[in-house]
Amino acid sequence: MKWPPYLHRAHYYETDQMAIVHHSNYIRWFEEGRVYFMELAGYGFKTMEAEGIISPVLSVTCNFKSMVRFDDQVMVLPKLESFSGAKLTMSYRIIDCETQQLRADGQSSHGFLDRSGRPVSLKKANPKMYELFAALVGQELWDIPAQTAHPL
Amino acid sequence: MKWPPYLHRAHYYETDQMAIVHHSNYIRWFEEGRVYFMELAGYGFKTMEAEGIISPVLSVTCNFKSMVRFDDQVMVLPKLESFSGAKLTMSYRIIDCETQQLRADGQSSHGFLDRSGRPVSLKKANPKMYELFAALVGQELWDIPAQTAHPL
Amino acid sequence: MKWPPYLHRAHYYETDQMAIVHHSNYIRWFEEGRVYFMELAGYGFKTMEAEGIISPVLSVTCNFKSMVRFDDQVMVLPKLESFSGAKLTMSYRIIDCETQQLRADGQSSHGFLDRSGRPVSLKKANPKMYELFAALVGQELWDIPAQTAHPL
Amino acid sequence: MKWPPYLHRAHYYETDQMAIVHHSNYIRWFEEGRVYFMELAGYGFKTMEAEGIISPVLSVTCNFKSMVRFDDQVMVLPKLESFSGAKLTMSYRIIDCETQQLRADGQSSHGFLDRSGRPVSLKKANPKMYELFAALVGQELWDIPAQTAHPL
Repeated sequence: MKWPPYLHRAHYYETDQMAIVHHSNYIRWFEEGRVYFMELAGYGFKTMEAEGIISPVLSVTCNFKSMVRFDDQVMVLPKLESFSGAKLTMSYRIIDCETQQLRADGQSSHGFLDRSGRPVSLKKANPKMYELFAALVGQELWDIPAQTAHPL
Repeated sequence: MKWPPYLHRAHYYETDQMAIVHHSNYIRWFEEGRVYFMELAGYGFKTMEAEGIISPVLSVTCNFKSMVRFDDQVMVLPKLESFSGAKLTMSYRIIDCETQQLRADGQSSHGFLDRSGRPVSLKKANPKMYELFAALVGQELWDIPAQTAHPL
Repeated sequence: MKWPPYLHRAHYYETDQMAIVHHSNYIRWFEEGRVYFMELAGYGFKTMEAEGIISPVLSVTCNFKSMVRFDDQVMVLPKLESFSGAKLTMSYRIIDCETQQLRADGQSSHGFLDRSGRPVSLKKANPKMYELFAALVGQELWDIPAQTAHPL
Repeated sequence: MKWPPYLHRAHYYETDQMAIVHHSNYIRWFEEGRVYFMELAGYGFKTMEAEGIISPVLSVTCNFKSMVRFDDQVMVLPKLESFSGAKLTMSYRIIDCETQQLRADGQSSHGFLDRSGRPVSLKKANPKMYELFAALVGQELWDIPAQTAHPL
């Protein structure tokens, strides 16, 4: 079973004076996609934090392939690359909805801390979350429509 | 005794595709000026939060008079307009360092909550902060240089 | 005929260390709502700029009524309060989708410039846009669902 | 001869609900450091754009080593790693001013376009900029104070 991709419309305030989306916003879009992924996986970011797990970002990379402009709509497509319980790595593709062109790709990795700030493995600290995420490693989850009309 | 004004250099990522600073950033500059004001007043924002007082924004207004562009340097000049212990109102002027032109003015008002989220009056909850701020109501505190060369 | 309201889900990067959405983001949500309104009105922001009209913000106000937290979904409901062709004023309500509570309200006003930066009246400079917007002054346009289940 | 490092004080609006600076802001701090570096190098970003060169970001990476909190002051230390005239790569270290601890490091690479959007080599398109930057490849330029008292 495939999931509908996460969509983001580029906001005016995300542009800079090159008249393109400022590159720092892609890092935020990765986060939007990651939050969406976790919710679809059955264990949302909000639930995770409510249950006492904090997940700081350890690293992030982004390769900018072609420009996104104001009002363009893109899909953010995360993929769980690896997950040990102690560390999680996701990759992302950002694809234009109209042209299907790749706008950017990248990766982020994340650790897990308990409320006192100590690193934990989810195998013990949160087995439910561990099982849900471990099952999704390496899977292509997105049902990408062949072509998308310009949306409202 | 007057204080040196808070300076902000407009960052590239603060511009939008009109090639001016996006208007939402002025609200952030007001906050930068407010934090600086509190530190000079002898009771910083960080200390306030560490001592259990949270200060949410109740309202904000901004009038945009002329455009700020990338790399322009501005002064942010807060003034404590009123302060009852339960509510604080500040006004702000944003002035270009080179031309002394007014770029924007505005206001913000703020309440005070304790850790459990209940409104408090600083008269009782934090007399030190109350005294320090009450003494500054209505004062013009800034020592504005007559003209500023373009800084690094 | 009524329109479906603009929806925004509060992003993690929009929160601050009070664990609420930072107040500056509401100004950005007003813009998101304004862009959506213009598109539904039949004359999008992108088209406007492509046809040589620039629309800087003259003023903005926001009253924060109750807090928006990460993952909350809100409706942004703009209303065209006045429009002379030379100046446009919009009001906004931000309403929580689940509870229907008012989170914030506010206003923004906007002028119109041609490519050389001179103020213009849309009556002459862009009669199509003028007619479309003039017809919407004062109208309650939004079809607000009685209650919204928590969305994905 | 060494240069004074670029300083950034972490703003309240840069924090998120983990009570640390949101990771996307480091990408913006890299840009602040890059703009400062270019100005010290004798050819500012504003001059470059005024002379018709646009420099989009091709890639960015950031490794988050330890957390930056509200009101912390950091140094952003760029280093020009390579520069061919057609492509420029910078590395960055973000170091806490009080503890001298490494908070993050990373890299960004950049291309150069003319006004029509075509890739150019600065060897031909802007020899002055080319010479100034070529001379700085690989150099450690920053005069880092042994310890910094907490600044205003």
